[in-house]
Amino acid sequence: MAESFYICLDIGGTKVLGAIFNSKKEIVYRLKKKTKSAGDSSQNIEDLIISVVDEMIVGAEINKKQVVAIAAGAPGVINQEEGIVLFSPNLPWRNYNIKKPIEEKFGVPFYIGNDVNVGVLGEYKYGAGKGYKNVVGLFVGTGMGGGLILDGKLYTGHQFKGAELGHMVLNSEGPRCNCGQRGCLEAFSSKQGISDYIRQQTERGRESLMAEAVKGGIFKSKLLKAALEANDKVSVEAVERACHYLAVATGNLINIFSPEVVIYGGGVVEACGNSFLPLILKDVDKYCMPSIRDTVEIRNAALGDDSILYGALSMILEKDN
Amino acid sequence: MAESFYICLDIGGTKVLGAIFNSKKEIVYRLKKKTKSAGDSSQNIEDLIISVVDEMIVGAEINKKQVVAIAAGAPGVINQEEGIVLFSPNLPWRNYNIKKPIEEKFGVPFYIGNDVNVGVLGEYKYGAGKGYKNVVGLFVGTGMGGGLILDGKLYTGHQFKGAELGHMVLNSEGPRCNCGQRGCLEAFSSKQGISDYIRQQTERGRESLMAEAVKGGIFKSKLLKAALEANDKVSVEAVERACHYLAVATGNLINIFSPEVVIYGGGVVEACGNSFLPLILKDVDKYCMPSIRDTVEIRNAALGDDSILYGALSMILEKDN
Repeated sequence: MAESFYICLDIGGTKVLGAIFNSKKEIVYRLKKKTKSAGDSSQNIEDLIISVVDEMIVGAEINKKQVVAIAAGAPGVINQEEGIVLFSPNLPWRNYNIKKPIEEKFGVPFYIGNDVNVGVLGEYKYGAGKGYKNVVGLFVGTGMGGGLILDGKLYTGHQFKGAELGHMVLNSEGPRCNCGQRGCLEAFSSKQGISDYIRQQTERGRESLMAEAVKGGIFKSKLLKAALEANDKVSVEAVERACHYLAVATGNLINIFSPEVVIYGGGVVEACGNSFLPLILKDVDKYCMPSIRDTVEIRNAALGDDSILYGALSMILEKDN
Repeated sequence: MAESFYICLDIGGTKVLGAIFNSKKEIVYRLKKKTKSAGDSSQNIEDLIISVVDEMIVGAEINKKQVVAIAAGAPGVINQEEGIVLFSPNLPWRNYNIKKPIEEKFGVPFYIGNDVNVGVLGEYKYGAGKGYKNVVGLFVGTGMGGGLILDGKLYTGHQFKGAELGHMVLNSEGPRCNCGQRGCLEAFSSKQGISDYIRQQTERGRESLMAEAVKGGIFKSKLLKAALEANDKVSVEAVERACHYLAVATGNLINIFSPEVVIYGGGVVEACGNSFLPLILKDVDKYCMPSIRDTVEIRNAALGDDSILYGALSMILEKDN
């Protein structure tokens, strides 16, 4: 019998990452395409996804009939049961049924979920959350995404709108967040929050290696990495501040969920390297009950940029989610 | 065939409430006993519970054989599966197996859970949360208890320690909480938090009808009710402040869970009457995402002081929790 393959996608606002997994759950082929190149209509994004899948099948030299299923994570509020993207901040889909056309085109099941939810699912099944039942995930990127595995299942709440952990208000007089509130975790601790803080400081006349990088908006992660390595004072401050609020939020989430593990992923975590987790661990005990803290592991994601791809694989292979 | 009866208990630090339900889920007999009268050993509390059950059977003139099961809610961290009270702030039980002696004494199953969890379960099955799948409950009493129904099941987290919603930190520079942290929801919005605020103000020389009531510690709910009816300025301020922080916490919980309903219960809610909920509703929209807020009901508990009794009934009748 010919080998089976699973095609998994990480659909972002700027790029689509694709991977083909074999039945041993190994990635045997990868492809990356810029989302922007597709133009910004719903149909264009759908066409892009189809072309990524087509190209991967050709590039990996497998037979279309060997593909058992396709799955994806994408930003936004997604009806996972029906494969409808209800709303996405970075993609042109509104109440868009993406399941139907993909399934018709390829003749195999297609699954899709919110990218951070799917990423946390990946970590739960194959990464830093393996073996646990209750997992809280925080993905620190341009924004701040959250994912919850509760009693062994992905929790998405009513109408798939839950797990907005980044919009926990930690100080109602705090800085303005993209969502319009003040003092959300995202406003302190995301790339946006860190950029805003550095910009604020450089506009006061303080020097920073990141001054240019944050002028127009948000820095690129590799620039932050370099600035931290050079011990840039304002950048270090900004990350310490971000981690302080992450510690408060993590303490709250520990009290709320009594999870077995809290996992941090995303570009900022990767950029900060080994300095990130200790900054959170330094503070988190202050903000949760010691009796609950005792049974929680706090750690970095294990699958790096592949969390979402593995989570998509899990949507195909483990229907109990 | 003789009718079946269910005995349900609300075990508190100061009193035990008991009720006998018939098979139509109606309360046919009630009993209330002071906990303090029992003395403060583990054995004494166990004996008290046994005596309450015994007295109720006699008082209701039913046959012991008609009792199908017994269930209870009690304060603390409780291993619901094994009937072990791991820790209780108000009762002398530590790692105490209360299931075994009660089952041996009465020859029927005995179930026990954390009181607020059980109360929210009661509201979910028979009260303000009926018909929903995702319910967040906040019980505003001396402390601030939380309960979570997620995907149709009571969520207690790892080792039954979750749902500590009252210890969400809303301002890490805020007032000291009983748990040792600063700025927890409980420190602002519980009876303790409201008492502390009123005391602070009266010690500054401001006048309040509640000055005496908070001098030694925590006011009695009926005194707050009277002060609010008399439009006592400091008391009104204290409740407005409590409701502001409840609105922030509720907004956070809405973003985290996307529940269908948030329910408020407990002595403070009852004391504040109709003024309580509007004060929260006034603010809550500011602290959660409008798209999630759109599908959440926010309401008072429907079962009043009987939430825990009905929740205990549900533990007996609906094993799927």
